[in-house]
Amino acid sequence: MAKELSSREDNYSQWYTDLVTKADLAENSAVRGCMVIKPYGYAIWERMQAALDKMFKDTGHENAYFPLFIPKSFFSKEASHVEGFAKECAVVTHYRLKNDENGKGIVVDEDAKLEEELIVRPTSETIIWDTYRTWIQSYRDLPLLINQWANVVRWEMRTRLFLRTTEFLWQEGHTAHSTMEEAVAEAEQMLRIYAEFAEDWMAMPVLQGVKSPNERFAGAVETYCIEALMQDGKALQAGTSHFLGQNFAKAFDVKFLSKENKLEYVWATSWGVSTRLMGALVMSHSDNSGLVLPPKLASVQVVIIPIYKNQEQFDAISQKALEIKKSLEARNIRVKYDNRDTHKPGFKFTEWEFKGVPLRIAIGPRDLENQTVEIARRDTLEKEVLQMTGIDLKVENLLGQIQKNLFQKALDFRNMNTFKIDSWSDFTEQIEKGGFLLAHWDGTPETEQKIKDETKATIRLIPIESDPKPGLCVYTGKPSKQRVYFARAY
Amino acid sequence: MAKELSSREDNYSQWYTDLVTKADLAENSAVRGCMVIKPYGYAIWERMQAALDKMFKDTGHENAYFPLFIPKSFFSKEASHVEGFAKECAVVTHYRLKNDENGKGIVVDEDAKLEEELIVRPTSETIIWDTYRTWIQSYRDLPLLINQWANVVRWEMRTRLFLRTTEFLWQEGHTAHSTMEEAVAEAEQMLRIYAEFAEDWMAMPVLQGVKSPNERFAGAVETYCIEALMQDGKALQAGTSHFLGQNFAKAFDVKFLSKENKLEYVWATSWGVSTRLMGALVMSHSDNSGLVLPPKLASVQVVIIPIYKNQEQFDAISQKALEIKKSLEARNIRVKYDNRDTHKPGFKFTEWEFKGVPLRIAIGPRDLENQTVEIARRDTLEKEVLQMTGIDLKVENLLGQIQKNLFQKALDFRNMNTFKIDSWSDFTEQIEKGGFLLAHWDGTPETEQKIKDETKATIRLIPIESDPKPGLCVYTGKPSKQRVYFARAY
Repeated sequence: MAKELSSREDNYSQWYTDLVTKADLAENSAVRGCMVIKPYGYAIWERMQAALDKMFKDTGHENAYFPLFIPKSFFSKEASHVEGFAKECAVVTHYRLKNDENGKGIVVDEDAKLEEELIVRPTSETIIWDTYRTWIQSYRDLPLLINQWANVVRWEMRTRLFLRTTEFLWQEGHTAHSTMEEAVAEAEQMLRIYAEFAEDWMAMPVLQGVKSPNERFAGAVETYCIEALMQDGKALQAGTSHFLGQNFAKAFDVKFLSKENKLEYVWATSWGVSTRLMGALVMSHSDNSGLVLPPKLASVQVVIIPIYKNQEQFDAISQKALEIKKSLEARNIRVKYDNRDTHKPGFKFTEWEFKGVPLRIAIGPRDLENQTVEIARRDTLEKEVLQMTGIDLKVENLLGQIQKNLFQKALDFRNMNTFKIDSWSDFTEQIEKGGFLLAHWDGTPETEQKIKDETKATIRLIPIESDPKPGLCVYTGKPSKQRVYFARAY
Repeated sequence: MAKELSSREDNYSQWYTDLVTKADLAENSAVRGCMVIKPYGYAIWERMQAALDKMFKDTGHENAYFPLFIPKSFFSKEASHVEGFAKECAVVTHYRLKNDENGKGIVVDEDAKLEEELIVRPTSETIIWDTYRTWIQSYRDLPLLINQWANVVRWEMRTRLFLRTTEFLWQEGHTAHSTMEEAVAEAEQMLRIYAEFAEDWMAMPVLQGVKSPNERFAGAVETYCIEALMQDGKALQAGTSHFLGQNFAKAFDVKFLSKENKLEYVWATSWGVSTRLMGALVMSHSDNSGLVLPPKLASVQVVIIPIYKNQEQFDAISQKALEIKKSLEARNIRVKYDNRDTHKPGFKFTEWEFKGVPLRIAIGPRDLENQTVEIARRDTLEKEVLQMTGIDLKVENLLGQIQKNLFQKALDFRNMNTFKIDSWSDFTEQIEKGGFLLAHWDGTPETEQKIKDETKATIRLIPIESDPKPGLCVYTGKPSKQRVYFARAY
């Protein structure tokens, strides 16, 4: 096995960390909880960004940029918001360093203390709604559909690469509307976009629904979310979209003159996905041989590896390899010809397998004679010998098949690991094995908390159903409106 | 004149600020010195990013991401670096807020004080070179060609939108090489790329050269730069590329095993351009009617405005306008059809002129009859009536002409305002009028400082010349190797 990857079955957590670091996606930095996203990982994030950015723009959103710092007083303005974020804020208190007078090196200059401390943004609702106050006067200024790509900081005590880091990269949409209906529709639209991105690009099936009040975003009226199931049976929240009501408009006094000439508070949404998606991507598809990347997000979709014994063979194979590369690139396929003479083919096979490249093409002297190539799929690890003629079309089709297969595998896994649970003993037994538990809940925060305390399971989402089926709470036996999804989660 | 724009001749500084805010490029935020980049401004920045990013990738660079925070101790490791940045650092000292026990609202939790303070990055050499130590072992790991798109913070006392802000957006390239020659070649290559971008995309002619020791980047052996001349006769540094020697490799102990099996320190470069370019763009071309944008960077290249008196006319014109829009879009031209019924054509004309849209097409009932349109150029403010037939090709050609004309105008302006100066009295007289002063300098920091103290002029750059012509210093009369460019600068 390449690069001493821990086994997924023996130690899932270590397997994940090994994979992220050894496949050169990211690593821990010298700064506690902050990661370095390495070029191979960042290239995947760039593809995610490009796809999402296009979806946002196609639905009328524009990008902008707001300050990294938020005055401390802004936080206090929306009560539940500050409650949610105060405990994990990086605080800037000074704006200068100086040489210590006692020769102890560089120290903070106490003369350069800020009058009001600045918070490094954990999310930007407050600074943005403070800005919107001057941007919005009339219904003609609405809707305001803005997105920001940015870094944010939440001082997490326990961090894990991509999944939970002190600093992370994300996008945060912040929209303003003249009616509640329009804002709700926007929040729901963005949830659908996230779901479409997760399924079509990441090949990761997701459930859609709303959070219970306990799990809502700090300051939201309703939090919509997409949830995915990882291979260890734990759930992962992959994106959220919030209907904020008029909470932030009221906190920051943002009113507009309606068509009826009345001053009214503005309705709001916010929505975001982050580099956490990178963690979800790794955990959805990878195996004990390394990363498995869906073709749509892989920065190298096809690697061509020459197998040769002498320079003459190498030259002949290279000529053919470059022809194939060119024909694939003409179909917008991203190809690498690995012609390094410092490594053996076997090493290269393992390396690219480890890095999750969807297709590998090997060409040896016999292939040249027969006008064939050996092609290996990363998802199934199957190999076959194909004629060179028409290889570009075959590869294109194979990439499409791999994308679909990865989604189907993940969907099958989720279906196999989703359980209707009707008794508390079944619940406690199944939760230890993992998966989504679809169970009735009496709708109270108290019951939710007790279930969490006893099993570490939380309500991942409440499905939005036109015809909800009532039942009895799996914990209290009290009436329940509908089943909800429980799971242990990242 | 639209939106009460100050006159460029009367008050250049106010004209600039009016333009940036009223054309919706950016505005000041509630956080001192930090700006909000508004959607119309951010769209231009996105185009700049895309063009630069492609140029970087075409020359073999990859993107990555490093932490926002830098441990204080890292700064002390490179002596001149800390000297250069210590006085303008935002310092994070705490990681939690809490409710004040005396009911004074939210306060910093003194129990959550960091053991070592974190600096919000003003530039990332230190954290990156600390990381490179583990990435680089052998000559096979080199060159390492990495770029980062990020926000940085420098606590500036006097700020101006885009030109000098506490937080700004930029890219910073950080490369590592096995030889001095290769590192120097990289620094020079990136300077050429910056110059090409400035001239081809921004239509902004730039001088290329190196900085005097006084003006060098803190930690660099040589700083290459591009300098442009603004319309008020002041220079603006638009990009820098640094040859860092082995300074950071030594400070962070980054060595590699050479082909000859020797342990050697790595050679480095860094290079960056920032949202400052947005300020340079505004100041290079705009006039008293508002922004003037080069077609390559304008998010709207052509605006079509209907002139009508009734619904019937509007419908007929709209049909034609949308046909034209479609034919232009087929040539990858970015078109907006301004069909708002809330504003008169005159208002729209002024608004899009103010926002710098390169070409305006107006269509009225007479145009429909004659199968013509009226087309107006933003750069010359000239109008002409053109046949609709083949309008797509004509517009494409016109956009190309505008791009060229803007460059040529700016180049003529710079040539008209570059003066060979041979006496101190001419120097002091001309510097008041502005422009580049090409004068001899004795090469000493003392003389440079005296000239700066007396005239506020700095050496903007020293041209790289194969055959420098010696002379006598304009200030001291001592021998000079070659002329250098002086100017007052942003």
